[in-house]
Amino acid sequence: MSASPYKQLEQEWKRLHAFRGALSLLRWDAAVMMPRGSADVRGEQLAALETEYHALLTAPRITRLLDRAQAGTQGLADWQIANLREMRRQRDHAIATPVSLISRLAKATSRAEVQWLEARQQGKYELFSPHLEEVVHLVRDKAALLGQALNLAPYDALVDEFSPGIGMADIDTMFKALSRRVPSLIREVITLQERNPALPISSTFPRGKQRSLVVEIMKAIGFPFDRGRLDESEHAFTEGVPGDIRVTTRFDTSDVFTGLLGALHETGHAMYDLGLPKDLRDQPVGQDRGMALEESQSLLIEMIVCRSRPFVEYLKPLLEKHFAVTGPEWTVDNLYGHLTRVRRSLIRVDADELTYPLHIMLRYELEKRVLSGELAVRDLPEAWNAGMEQRLGIRPANASEGCLQDIHWAVGSFGYFPSYALGAVIAAQLYESLRADVPALDEQLAKGDFTGLFGWLREHVHGVGAKVSVQELLKAATGKPLSAASFVRHVEGRYLENAGTAPSSAAA
Amino acid sequence: MSASPYKQLEQEWKRLHAFRGALSLLRWDAAVMMPRGSADVRGEQLAALETEYHALLTAPRITRLLDRAQAGTQGLADWQIANLREMRRQRDHAIATPVSLISRLAKATSRAEVQWLEARQQGKYELFSPHLEEVVHLVRDKAALLGQALNLAPYDALVDEFSPGIGMADIDTMFKALSRRVPSLIREVITLQERNPALPISSTFPRGKQRSLVVEIMKAIGFPFDRGRLDESEHAFTEGVPGDIRVTTRFDTSDVFTGLLGALHETGHAMYDLGLPKDLRDQPVGQDRGMALEESQSLLIEMIVCRSRPFVEYLKPLLEKHFAVTGPEWTVDNLYGHLTRVRRSLIRVDADELTYPLHIMLRYELEKRVLSGELAVRDLPEAWNAGMEQRLGIRPANASEGCLQDIHWAVGSFGYFPSYALGAVIAAQLYESLRADVPALDEQLAKGDFTGLFGWLREHVHGVGAKVSVQELLKAATGKPLSAASFVRHVEGRYLENAGTAPSSAAA
Repeated sequence: MSASPYKQLEQEWKRLHAFRGALSLLRWDAAVMMPRGSADVRGEQLAALETEYHALLTAPRITRLLDRAQAGTQGLADWQIANLREMRRQRDHAIATPVSLISRLAKATSRAEVQWLEARQQGKYELFSPHLEEVVHLVRDKAALLGQALNLAPYDALVDEFSPGIGMADIDTMFKALSRRVPSLIREVITLQERNPALPISSTFPRGKQRSLVVEIMKAIGFPFDRGRLDESEHAFTEGVPGDIRVTTRFDTSDVFTGLLGALHETGHAMYDLGLPKDLRDQPVGQDRGMALEESQSLLIEMIVCRSRPFVEYLKPLLEKHFAVTGPEWTVDNLYGHLTRVRRSLIRVDADELTYPLHIMLRYELEKRVLSGELAVRDLPEAWNAGMEQRLGIRPANASEGCLQDIHWAVGSFGYFPSYALGAVIAAQLYESLRADVPALDEQLAKGDFTGLFGWLREHVHGVGAKVSVQELLKAATGKPLSAASFVRHVEGRYLENAGTAPSSAAA
Repeated sequence: MSASPYKQLEQEWKRLHAFRGALSLLRWDAAVMMPRGSADVRGEQLAALETEYHALLTAPRITRLLDRAQAGTQGLADWQIANLREMRRQRDHAIATPVSLISRLAKATSRAEVQWLEARQQGKYELFSPHLEEVVHLVRDKAALLGQALNLAPYDALVDEFSPGIGMADIDTMFKALSRRVPSLIREVITLQERNPALPISSTFPRGKQRSLVVEIMKAIGFPFDRGRLDESEHAFTEGVPGDIRVTTRFDTSDVFTGLLGALHETGHAMYDLGLPKDLRDQPVGQDRGMALEESQSLLIEMIVCRSRPFVEYLKPLLEKHFAVTGPEWTVDNLYGHLTRVRRSLIRVDADELTYPLHIMLRYELEKRVLSGELAVRDLPEAWNAGMEQRLGIRPANASEGCLQDIHWAVGSFGYFPSYALGAVIAAQLYESLRADVPALDEQLAKGDFTGLFGWLREHVHGVGAKVSVQELLKAATGKPLSAASFVRHVEGRYLENAGTAPSSAAA
């Protein structure tokens, strides 16, 4: 009754948080459990809930309460003021997009996702193309409206939704820095590695045993299986909320690393979400600080930690235990050689960390051109293939290993891909400081002890939530603004080393 | 814009239907997939969605539109007028219960369900008792409010929610009729069957093979696996909506029939839902006609059809195929003997159709006493055990096989149990007419051909939806009002036959 405007807003967002959790579960189910023929039904449900969520968030009452709360912030703690700012941000984003558009987008992406799966399985882009066209059309409308309301370029407005405060200028600066060193480094490293190739690991790895291995490592990391699940899906992802978090991966019975690294990537996301301020879970300020930071946490685990030599020392006996394997190809050196092998490959999620940014640059360029209308949706496969040839010197044989490989565009996530490259760069910057602050890190990781790692991340990243911007968080955690320098140092250190031992001076 | 009030209402209900579908999926997930520790999170989500559903249904706009639409029904088809009546009914029920109560009930039942599972596994009623107490307290409030608004006794108001138009008077009449014949018939049949006992079937039946058998039969029946799933859960149930329907069962590796019959029971529900008028799926008039009719459809399949001799003729070679079994215990006669065996047993879902109504009478009596306050929640186990002893002459050794066996009270479904007995009685009445109308039925069933069966049911039951009352539907389908006479004829016919062959004159 007489609750303050601010307190009333907290209650409203508690409800919105429950709505988002329900929506997330419906999406998880659609990708993991739902019968193939039920996409239309799920589309209606998602649309109804998205529409209602939007209506609740943009209700005049919220605007009135925000105005009243922001007019009198005396007595509010700093986090509450930050919470108000994030509430306003969410409301501003929502109100810029009309409900009819949200609803059409939800239905269109629901259909497109199913067709994407089908098209990818059959390698037939034409099954997907008209559905993607519909999605692009709607995303374009959304970008224009958002841009107008937020006074941003349309593409920047889309990026801002995923990674607040980041835009094309930051992305271009980063890609320019990476372009100066990464392509030449790839050539050097491939030459170096060809002189000393890893022994091939060819065997069959039953899914059940792969799952057991993954579960054991996730438990060591601290993933709470009493409040989370690991499942299989076409494309690894994380859905749910802290308290019921759902990670998926895709097992390949001929490759022991695909499913493991996919799961570890997602576990990185999950650990971030689980490390967010517990008592603010249902408030905006208790949420993740956008997708670039989310990806920094997944890539830090998958790419930096879990391909490091200390982690491989921990992994080796686990592989022996779960798959009863032994021999020269299962030594720490050889496993490390595999995990740090650099090659020009077609599939982003299987790419090494050195070629990975090139995959993202291609997508960044193409999605901007598609959205601007410069590139027609039907011409995507050819533009993709040409771009792969130009950047990596290889050409997909079909659309399944080309422009159909990622789910993002099917579900309308334009402006998301840059987060992966930003994430890689942020991860390297954080890790450089982390290694300096936790001298025993390598010994801990070699024993499967992740407490030092996550202790630092909780303090400097996870526990911060959305109280400050990414840039402020990075400055506080590392003493430096966002820059690609740490990433370049990291990959030079790791890949130019002969046997691949990361020099401890990399942290200096 | 200028849509008529009636058309606007159709749009509103389309949205409400999507909400209900989302809620159903969240419940399915909670019972089948959700990690044990996440009940609190799911409770918040269910509460938020239930609350919003309630707000949408009771919005002043709905009342205004209903008033306007009902003031001018000229030009509306009969089904549209029936649709308006059902809309009004749903709104009247909803408006009688305040949103705060709905929300508290959703949270309390979410917690209670998890504790029920735990208590049942450990056989410790005391783990569940305080949670049930909370649920009972809230259900009591709800019954009082509903009763007041609908001018019904509190318990009748609860029954009316599940089975519109049915009340204690109908239930008491039915139980009186059954009490006159069933107890003596049980004694006669047990004596008769003791003279010629079935050979024991003892083996191990792997879950995977049981699942294959069940899937094959469900496919023959017409269950659409491209728009539905079969999973395992503690307690068999059906959730979802036509278009994405989710059936569960519980497999027992030492008993080949438990999982099969559980799944067939739920398939009966699913086939009813799938047979509802396709173009009215998102409208009230296109929904099932309440729980008594729902249960009539599940019991007709599980109890009447799938324990009939023709069905056993179809089943025998399937059992041989899936479990590679053979021998005297696998003859049609012996299998039929098992499926029609009558015994005094503790678990309702495993009970035969003859003793089944006594299980329901016990629950009906106890839930009325608990709700009235005459029986304390903590005293339920003792009252249950005493009741079992009095009605069936046997006594549970622990609460897991006593009052903890059913999920219903944990999830607040008081007033639901009578639907099972009503369902059994309605099933027998429908089946008597069905057999008369479809003379080739037995030959069809023996070949695994279910078209005659479901053709009749679609025409006379499923396709009717909620256009008329249960009583009107029964009158139109069978020419007679609701009565227990067919049920008594059915069980006398089936169980007093020597080898158990159902006399074809039962249809006369």
